[in-house]
Parts: sequence; C-alpha cells; structure tokens
Amino acid sequence: MAKSLLVVGSIAFDSVRTPHGEAEDVLGGSAVYFSVAASFFSPVRLVGVVGEDFPDAFRQVLQSREIDTAGLHVVEGGRTFRWRGSYEGAMNEARTDEVHLNVFGDFRPDLPEAFRDSRLVFLANGSPVTQMSVLEQVEKPDLVVADTMNLWIENERDALEALLARIDGLVLNEGEARMLTGRPNLIRAAEEVLALGPKFVVVKKGEHGALLLAREGEGETMAEGRLVCPLPGFPCPEVCDPTGAGDSFAGGLMGHLARIGKHDFASLRRAMAYGTVTASFTVEDFSLRRLEGLALEEIEGRLRQYSDMLRLG
Amino acid sequence: MAKSLLVVGSIAFDSVRTPHGEAEDVLGGSAVYFSVAASFFSPVRLVGVVGEDFPDAFRQVLQSREIDTAGLHVVEGGRTFRWRGSYEGAMNEARTDEVHLNVFGDFRPDLPEAFRDSRLVFLANGSPVTQMSVLEQVEKPDLVVADTMNLWIENERDALEALLARIDGLVLNEGEARMLTGRPNLIRAAEEVLALGPKFVVVKKGEHGALLLAREGEGETMAEGRLVCPLPGFPCPEVCDPTGAGDSFAGGLMGHLARIGKHDFASLRRAMAYGTVTASFTVEDFSLRRLEGLALEEIEGRLRQYSDMLRLG
Repeated sequence: MAKSLLVVGSIAFDSVRTPHGEAEDVLGGSAVYFSVAASFFSPVRLVGVVGEDFPDAFRQVLQSREIDTAGLHVVEGGRTFRWRGSYEGAMNEARTDEVHLNVFGDFRPDLPEAFRDSRLVFLANGSPVTQMSVLEQVEKPDLVVADTMNLWIENERDALEALLARIDGLVLNEGEARMLTGRPNLIRAAEEVLALGPKFVVVKKGEHGALLLAREGEGETMAEGRLVCPLPGFPCPEVCDPTGAGDSFAGGLMGHLARIGKHDFASLRRAMAYGTVTASFTVEDFSLRRLEGLALEEIEGRLRQYSDMLRLG
Repeated sequence: MAKSLLVVGSIAFDSVRTPHGEAEDVLGGSAVYFSVAASFFSPVRLVGVVGEDFPDAFRQVLQSREIDTAGLHVVEGGRTFRWRGSYEGAMNEARTDEVHLNVFGDFRPDLPEAFRDSRLVFLANGSPVTQMSVLEQVEKPDLVVADTMNLWIENERDALEALLARIDGLVLNEGEARMLTGRPNLIRAAEEVLALGPKFVVVKKGEHGALLLAREGEGETMAEGRLVCPLPGFPCPEVCDPTGAGDSFAGGLMGHLARIGKHDFASLRRAMAYGTVTASFTVEDFSLRRLEGLALEEIEGRLRQYSDMLRLG
C-alpha cells in the first residue's frame, strides 16, 4: 500500500556552465530535484524555504505535479539560495564558483501539522542538526533516509553520528563514504557506515552507478551477514548537465518505495534501479527541463531496458 | 562447440607494493594472467618470451593447467621482462616504479605451426605492429580481440588504426577510450571505437566494472542501432593487489567464449560477467596466488551470486 513521502531540503536558483552550454538562474536545489523525481511515483510533501524573489513560474513547476507545497516557506524581504557551478571534461565533479545561502542559511524547518504523520522521510543534504530537528517533528515514520556531504562529515561529526544512530538509510557519494569511515575500500567503507547505525547505505558513484549495502532483514540472509547490490549507471550518451542527478536518484528511489509501501532488500534494489533511470533523464538537459516533459511510462520503459541489459542468465 | 584459444603477450617478474603488503619477483605479465584465468574455461595456447632466468616453478604454474607452452620462447643468455609498481589508497591506479623490458623488448612472436589454426585470438597489450604480425600468422580465426594502452595510442596511432580495422573486439580502459577518441562521454567514446572497425568494444573501469558496446549482429537490434551492456564490478571487500585484474578479466571473457564456441551479444555479455568474477578472485592476493588455488566451481558460484545481485525483476 502506498505511503506518504516527505522531503526537507534546499530550493535554489542555479547557474550552471557545462561543455554543452549554460543556464542562468534556473530552478534547482536538492528538495526540488528530489520532489520532481519522486512525484512520478508518489505524491510528495515538500518542506523548504525561498525568498520573495521566487517566481510563480518555479512554484508552478512544483504545483503542477503531485507535490504538496504547504511546507514551502517564503521569507519576506529575503532572497532565495543561489548556487553557481561548472563542469568540465567528463563532468564527474562540479566546481562551485559561487554560493549565496541567503534565506537557506537560517533555515529552521517547521513542519506543517498535516505533514507530521509522514511515513517515509528524506532528509536532503543539510546540517545534521537541522536534519535531526526535522526527524523530531515526524511522529512515527516507517523509513527515514538522509543524505550528507563532506562539510558535515568534517565539521559536524558528532551531530552526524547522532543522526546516523536514528535513521534507517544513508545516501552519500563515494568520496564521502571514504571520508566518513577512513576506509579506501568501498565495501568496507559501506560496512562501517552500517556499524554507525543505519540499516542500509547507498553509495552514489555518479556515472558509475551505485552500491547498496544492507544489514540482513527478516528472512534475508547472506553468507557474510550482509546484503549487497552494485548497480552500474544507465549508459547515457547525452549528458548535458549532471546537476541534481544525486537528488533525482534519491527521489526515484524513495518515490518507488513510497509507491509500493515496503522496503525489504529486493524492493530497495529495485528502487535503486528506478533512482538510476530517473537520474539518467535529469542529466539530459539543464535544470528540471527533461523531467518536466517526461511521462512515467518513459521511466518504466528505460527501467525495462536497464533490467534487460543486466540479465545475465 | 568449444574452440581453440590463443594468447600472445608479456610474461614478467613483478615486484609490487600495495597497502596490504609486498611481493618481490613474482610471476606476472599480461599473457600469464590471461592464460591462467582463461584456463578455467578452456585450453589455452600461450605465446611469449622469457629469459634463462625464468624458473621451473613459474613454468610449472602454467604447465600444471591446460596451458600449452609450446610457444614459450626462451632467449639464451637473456633476462625476463621485469616490472616494479605500487598502489596507494583505493588502489585505482598503478604507479610504475621501474621497467626492464629485457627480452620482451625484442619480442617478435613466431607462432608454432600447431597454433596457426587457432579460432579465438587474444592480442594482449603490446605494440600494434607486433599484434598485427601475430594476426598475419593465424590462418582464419573466428574472433580476434586486442588490448591496447596509452603508449600505442599516442605513439603508434597509424599502426593501431590499421589493427583496429582488422580485429573483432577491442578491450581498453576508460582513460584510453577517451584518449583514443577524444570523447569524454564513455558511450560516445565507445561508439567512436566501433567506427574505427571493431564489432565490439569493452571499456574496463577497474572497480567500477566494464561497459560493452557492440554493433548489431544478425537478429540483434536495438533502438539506437547499437547494443550496450554496463556491468558493475563484483563487490570485493578484500582487494590485496589489483595487478593483472584487466588481463584476468579478458582471460575469463575469452575463456568462456572459447568454451561455448559462440560470440553473439548475449554470449559476450555473459562472458563479460565471467571476466568480472574471475578478476575479482585475482585481486584477492598477490600475483597468481588466488587463481592457483581456485576451482571452476568457485567462479561459477560467484557468477551465480553476481547474477542474483543484478536481478531486478
């Protein structure tokens, strides 16, 4: 049975330059990419903050989908978070050229009463203190997944560890997994993340896909006491702009879990595949452009194609 | 029906240092890793050159398996190829600390008469001029696959292009694929490799797995006129020494193709999976140590495990 899905994170104006062109002041932010990606599969409850400069056209992108914007807080006289970045060559890493946190710098998420019964929660990248404050406002979620980044691993280690003890899943990238655990081997790093609390961890590897490691659930066993699934990236010949790929991946993953209402290992694996193909559309154009024009059937089609590619039997 | 398999390449004394220890003057070389890996699946015909210093114990490693060493040429008074290298951190790249080509520097492979009817041929990394000279000594092979490297891409471009026009498949790593084609996107790079002649290309990505791209064969079609299969690396928690992983991968791949006697796209995909799991054993110890003690059943077991990990249905 489908379950409610909440996301809390950033909403931004992005300015991006890649070898394929540039885009100025376009809609971005972790919570936005997540919401739009997840909304193909499930209604989404969005909590975030913007300034008075946030245009109706951007709000419309969210409201035209099954995204409940009751938690979209507008700060009077404030300006929206702005990020400027660029990519070169194989576009594996974003270079941040400019950041203005603006109203996002003082973001203290306050969940609308109606969002407090959310069953699935995604805490997009943000301070672990803020992430924890969100968690405390949700009554009894079935599944809480968080993203994090190098900044918090380095500067908010204690708060991050406190959060890890409370969440079900952590999503982070390869370099962050190594930084968090000090283990160069990715499987070992993922194992150590599990030792910090979460039941599962998803390590994002950009164009190389993702790795899922989970503790055994009921009726699930594996020789070495853990369940593992490596998935390759979906082969994308047209990568225009990788911005938002990670959050779209998380959105597809959580959206699918909300849709099917369960999260055993086989479901997580399939959800990771949905995340992978959803993100493969995001990168085909700047901002949310590709997702805006997309139909669920196209995602399902690419999922079948992906699944066929991996059929070894 | 099984087919004969020939490999021509280097035979070396390796000295390797990794975060897990070191090994001095151990058996190595592309043709050795390839032969031992392939010999789990099929008899192998090996052509290579060594010096008088090549010990019986090393010869024994080859002869104790189904590896025909009739093409193992010993140069009187010569010394065997020596390589010294090291790996750090996540061990994604070897640093070459010392190279002595010795007898391999003058290697002009001369195929034993009995090897000239080989049906599957693997031209391990070497000068494209030398690789072509081997090809000209084989009567009518069904499938010729070559490996190459940055050195030849930069310095022997014409000879390499002449070779590409004559072979069926090319195996190379990510950085080499980008260097050969000037395309940062890996799918585009692989497509351009196909435009240079080969019917298929396998791009090796180390711990991140491999990408197979093939032109349509008979009865095989795909929307975009090409067949593609991305496979993740097998998750290895114990990577001791990555040396020889690429050649073991190629050995498992070609060995399986020789065993089944066909090379349509589905067979190539499955062969790539065999290459992946075979290489996942190689890296668990220095030199050929892990492969020496291995049974085919262990490879088949890991292949089933890998195949299950990728089952998304």
